[in-house]
Amino acid sequence: MGDHLAVLDQTKLPFRETTVPLSRTAHYTKAIRTMQVRGAPLIGIVAAYGVASEAMLAQHKTAGDFRNSVERCIQALGKTRPTAANLAWALGRQSSILATNWAIPASCAKKLLAEAKAIHRAQYAADLAMAKHALMLFPAGCEVLTVCNSGPVATGGIGTALGSIIYAYKHKRVLHVYVPETRPRMQGKITAWELERAGIPFTVIADGAVGALLAGRRIGAAVVGADRIAANGDTANKLGTYPMAVLCLKHGTKFIVVAPVSTLDAACPDGAHITIEERAAAELSVISGRQVMPARWQVWNPAFDITPRALVSFFVSENGALRGGRRS
Amino acid sequence: MGDHLAVLDQTKLPFRETTVPLSRTAHYTKAIRTMQVRGAPLIGIVAAYGVASEAMLAQHKTAGDFRNSVERCIQALGKTRPTAANLAWALGRQSSILATNWAIPASCAKKLLAEAKAIHRAQYAADLAMAKHALMLFPAGCEVLTVCNSGPVATGGIGTALGSIIYAYKHKRVLHVYVPETRPRMQGKITAWELERAGIPFTVIADGAVGALLAGRRIGAAVVGADRIAANGDTANKLGTYPMAVLCLKHGTKFIVVAPVSTLDAACPDGAHITIEERAAAELSVISGRQVMPARWQVWNPAFDITPRALVSFFVSENGALRGGRRS
Repeated sequence: MGDHLAVLDQTKLPFRETTVPLSRTAHYTKAIRTMQVRGAPLIGIVAAYGVASEAMLAQHKTAGDFRNSVERCIQALGKTRPTAANLAWALGRQSSILATNWAIPASCAKKLLAEAKAIHRAQYAADLAMAKHALMLFPAGCEVLTVCNSGPVATGGIGTALGSIIYAYKHKRVLHVYVPETRPRMQGKITAWELERAGIPFTVIADGAVGALLAGRRIGAAVVGADRIAANGDTANKLGTYPMAVLCLKHGTKFIVVAPVSTLDAACPDGAHITIEERAAAELSVISGRQVMPARWQVWNPAFDITPRALVSFFVSENGALRGGRRS
Repeated sequence: MGDHLAVLDQTKLPFRETTVPLSRTAHYTKAIRTMQVRGAPLIGIVAAYGVASEAMLAQHKTAGDFRNSVERCIQALGKTRPTAANLAWALGRQSSILATNWAIPASCAKKLLAEAKAIHRAQYAADLAMAKHALMLFPAGCEVLTVCNSGPVATGGIGTALGSIIYAYKHKRVLHVYVPETRPRMQGKITAWELERAGIPFTVIADGAVGALLAGRRIGAAVVGADRIAANGDTANKLGTYPMAVLCLKHGTKFIVVAPVSTLDAACPDGAHITIEERAAAELSVISGRQVMPARWQVWNPAFDITPRALVSFFVSENGALRGGRRS
């Protein structure tokens, strides 16, 4: 990071690998809101850089103005997306630094940048630790199923759930990955693109095919990331995760959640208290710039669903693997 | 039907209501294979007209040549799509007429056309009978869920599952319909278009949202059509039906299959013996003419899945409503 951060524009994958330069707060908020930057851990990292970036720009102001500018930035970033816990967590860390260091702006700005880098580095280490903890949970030589994208582009490291799958493939425990396209945003395309780059065999399926897949083939595990985990273990993740967990229970397929500790929201008692982001109808009615259904039609477009802890076989974080609430 | 049949091109809905003229066998097979004509009952009706059409064209040939032409037509139509039972059933009826009447081609052709019209009329009556039998299965004033399209354009009558929903709306038992978009072919768009024409409130959702919907709202019933029902009650229907049935059981939502007797395949013992059509990868990788993912990526694209009888609350046919295997 010099005067700006260059992030991969995930909305252009898999056909174009272009980056977006981010410097002002408005760039950061827009990139997160439009999902050019997505994936709960990456949202946290980029938001932390966003605060540092604003601080760098404001470091020549008076201390009071500096504090106001950075606080406004933190507030704006906090409002971009409601469900990812990592966002509030990363902004909380930057808020603490601001609160104790704002009186000397230039030094505070440096500390905020150092903190963003530390958050980034820590995620990288956490991803690898998660992959190692998850490894022996995969039946040897199995096929797995995931949803959405939780790979390198979603975390800045090797990924959470997909990172574990990639790692397990290298250790010959995973042989093949089934990738639901994940409507409406089709993050399955990003997962497929990452698997192709890693040389891992995969098959793309419609979201509705998860049932037929589990009924028809022996799938070793479904492995998913998380956007927020409540204190009781209820897990918010991409829409489609909950039906997958229900089907996995029915078919005796392990259901594994891989997410860093920063995804845990200890202040949230259970899934009913997690705010689920509802996104624009246009995500369903417009595809690749084309109107596929009339804009007047009513659409319900929640970005996430809640999987109760009782449906989770294992939770894997950088601290280790824990049993979930599922006993069969 | 003069010298040709004009059918609505369902692939152009909801934006364009255009018809395709069908006269030669190749037109009929193409229309069915490319899903310009779709919906199990309608496929049967159109195939019956296709046989009549070929017979009309061939009626001036010698009796032997006439029989050969019509038999080839029946064979070609029979190969278009493997899962819809109504197709084989309608062609079987035409085959019987051909077998006993081919010696006098002009008369046989007339009988084949009369039979196609009879199949069409019978479906119209069956749709209405099903809607009446289904009516009291809807909790009064409820919201319902369906999948794919089983309305007027799918049957030539008022529809099977969607026909029952439309009828129940008119009798104030149904208030609102949730419509999964039904990837990859997005037949949910056809359902929404039909509901809009009928003046019935509806909401379109992603296929992955069925779990969140059932977990979050009190849905009175999920109502679906069928493409083939095995002798034991296992039901092949559009991909996504099986996960919906599993989720309905979990949430105590009635799961109702509405299909005419012609969908029942008494010769097929159970779901494991139903042939599931696998369609082209391009259905997932190309949307509205645009490549949304590389054509080289492996795709698994089954058109249907199997819902075991144990997950069905009720089967409704023109003969009445029968309890399925679900007891809760």
